[in-house]
Amino acid sequence: MSLTHAYAVIMAGGKGERFWPLSTSRRPKQLLALAGGKPLIVQAVERLAGVIPPERVLIVTNESLVAPIRDLLGEGSPVGILGEPVGRDTAAAIAAGAAWIRRRDPEAVFCVLTADHVIGDLPVFRETLVQGLTLCAAHEVLMTIGIGPTEPSSAYGYIEAGAPWLSSGGIEFHRVRRFVEKPDADTARQYLATGRYAWNSGMFVWSVRSIRAAFAEFQPALAERLDAWSACAGDAEFQAALERDFPDLRKISIDYAVMEKAPNIVMCKGAFAWDDVGSWPALESHLPADGQGNAVQGDVAAAGSSGNIVVSDGRLTALVGVRDLVVVQADGVTLVCDKAHSQDIKTLLAQLREQPGREPIL
Amino acid sequence: MSLTHAYAVIMAGGKGERFWPLSTSRRPKQLLALAGGKPLIVQAVERLAGVIPPERVLIVTNESLVAPIRDLLGEGSPVGILGEPVGRDTAAAIAAGAAWIRRRDPEAVFCVLTADHVIGDLPVFRETLVQGLTLCAAHEVLMTIGIGPTEPSSAYGYIEAGAPWLSSGGIEFHRVRRFVEKPDADTARQYLATGRYAWNSGMFVWSVRSIRAAFAEFQPALAERLDAWSACAGDAEFQAALERDFPDLRKISIDYAVMEKAPNIVMCKGAFAWDDVGSWPALESHLPADGQGNAVQGDVAAAGSSGNIVVSDGRLTALVGVRDLVVVQADGVTLVCDKAHSQDIKTLLAQLREQPGREPIL
Repeated sequence: MSLTHAYAVIMAGGKGERFWPLSTSRRPKQLLALAGGKPLIVQAVERLAGVIPPERVLIVTNESLVAPIRDLLGEGSPVGILGEPVGRDTAAAIAAGAAWIRRRDPEAVFCVLTADHVIGDLPVFRETLVQGLTLCAAHEVLMTIGIGPTEPSSAYGYIEAGAPWLSSGGIEFHRVRRFVEKPDADTARQYLATGRYAWNSGMFVWSVRSIRAAFAEFQPALAERLDAWSACAGDAEFQAALERDFPDLRKISIDYAVMEKAPNIVMCKGAFAWDDVGSWPALESHLPADGQGNAVQGDVAAAGSSGNIVVSDGRLTALVGVRDLVVVQADGVTLVCDKAHSQDIKTLLAQLREQPGREPIL
Repeated sequence: MSLTHAYAVIMAGGKGERFWPLSTSRRPKQLLALAGGKPLIVQAVERLAGVIPPERVLIVTNESLVAPIRDLLGEGSPVGILGEPVGRDTAAAIAAGAAWIRRRDPEAVFCVLTADHVIGDLPVFRETLVQGLTLCAAHEVLMTIGIGPTEPSSAYGYIEAGAPWLSSGGIEFHRVRRFVEKPDADTARQYLATGRYAWNSGMFVWSVRSIRAAFAEFQPALAERLDAWSACAGDAEFQAALERDFPDLRKISIDYAVMEKAPNIVMCKGAFAWDDVGSWPALESHLPADGQGNAVQGDVAAAGSSGNIVVSDGRLTALVGVRDLVVVQADGVTLVCDKAHSQDIKTLLAQLREQPGREPIL
């Protein structure tokens, strides 16, 4: 098939709290080479090679990250970058992306991808996109890319598959029965056992026409903005319209805004490796092992210590008799965190934000 | 009484392993201001004010530490500093100190003090020295300064008091029944309950004549060296003699060499505050508290963390959800150590010594 109408929107917002102090508000996770050797945002663009050419890729990010991302991609890159003046969650970001694409090609079909996940099995990933884009060009559906779960994780939302819809290029597509919030461990085990549930990855495929129709039905104010933005004559005018309109938009995710309401939802269960690397402990499997049971990057020495995750930037980190810690050195800051409490980094950051002079490290 | 014949030898050897990475071989514990605001060696000299004038104080240390200690004391300081060419434990260091003093005053009485302990209640400490020096000038005894134990510590050797010997200036002196090695916790509790035991602090008082006589009886080779050294015409010749003789000396502590053998041992139970601050955990009570149950020095932020000891030199140390750790930042090194495993820092250092290029941090 021809993918001449295919585009991609890469969602690259995010505050960079969970990998602090390596990530900061000016250098959030998607800009870091946490795994795979290159910055995650660069990997997100490059893995589209052969499916969607870079000039039809749009990154939607915070305004303050436009220049750093441009630097990472290289000055000559034809990838589009849109800066949101304020964060209004995924529904608004997707509407802006849809408008940018619609201005170029009202017949377009596009995938919504994430900037800060680690994805493997690229041929499978690409084939999934190709089949999804092809089906969404032919059918007025909203497609979500679920991930076949490999463990009963309570860290993700789940999508329950309904009746089979279509099969194409060896990939099965189903109707969606329901979206469910992050389950407890028991429920997650039941989900895994049924084989019917997939992780909600935050990746989608649809035509401009279909998503506009869904916005018109469930988020009419946003549909109106989408229409206005896509009528803008040039990129400068478009950016100015976002500056003007974004602050008034409702902060809502695409899941709440559309996916959990619309009747024409379909899903495929992505059969590629996927990891959202959502916190320091999740990085463990992506770092080299030190032979003592620690996952380490940089200059680390350990005695009687195991199960630790250490990222040591420019100094020696020495561990003695400690277990299951996250120790991170970055930019004049050392974090020592219990692996089971990495979600409390946010509490610490809230505390630091109250202190004068902390801005450069946050 | 007159203390015109009173001298002091301050023992300032030590490898600086236990407070690594703040202490290193070139900057061991006694050179650090771990507590009390000034380097411990400077405090050790200054606390003799009014008892022994600085020109009658001798520091015995490693050769490599002579210049740094001279710097800390100030160029104009009249304190003597002797550099041992190789470490031969306390018997040899005390013999060298005794020779240095005997050259100046064969009638001298001197105390042997430590450079790296924290001592409080200075008037009591000074009165203890004054009474001890006075008695040792009049009696041929070897006096050890025990410390009245405040807890059933298993970290110290103990001295069991025997029959009362004398009382002077309100201070009780006893014969010594025996020296005992570091006890287990139960034994330490029994010791404390009897009221007869004191901690072995490594501080002593005796006349040059008495200690020489003890060496002559129990360590004749050392007594011979003491005689030869004290016949040296000047300090340069003296230092050259040490260079020549030290490598051949037996490595033995004054306790094993003399104190556990001699019949004329007496002790006083020092009633001043004393802490040998022998490891990172022992520093806890000397550091400021952060209000969350952590002992911290420097820039430290903590969330859901308590019982930690943090010394943060020049960078922010952030703790999240951790307990009972020692975290130390110094000279491009970060140590993260379980409080209960601080003795294993030595294991780590042994490991680092095998690695090329680690010299500057060891």
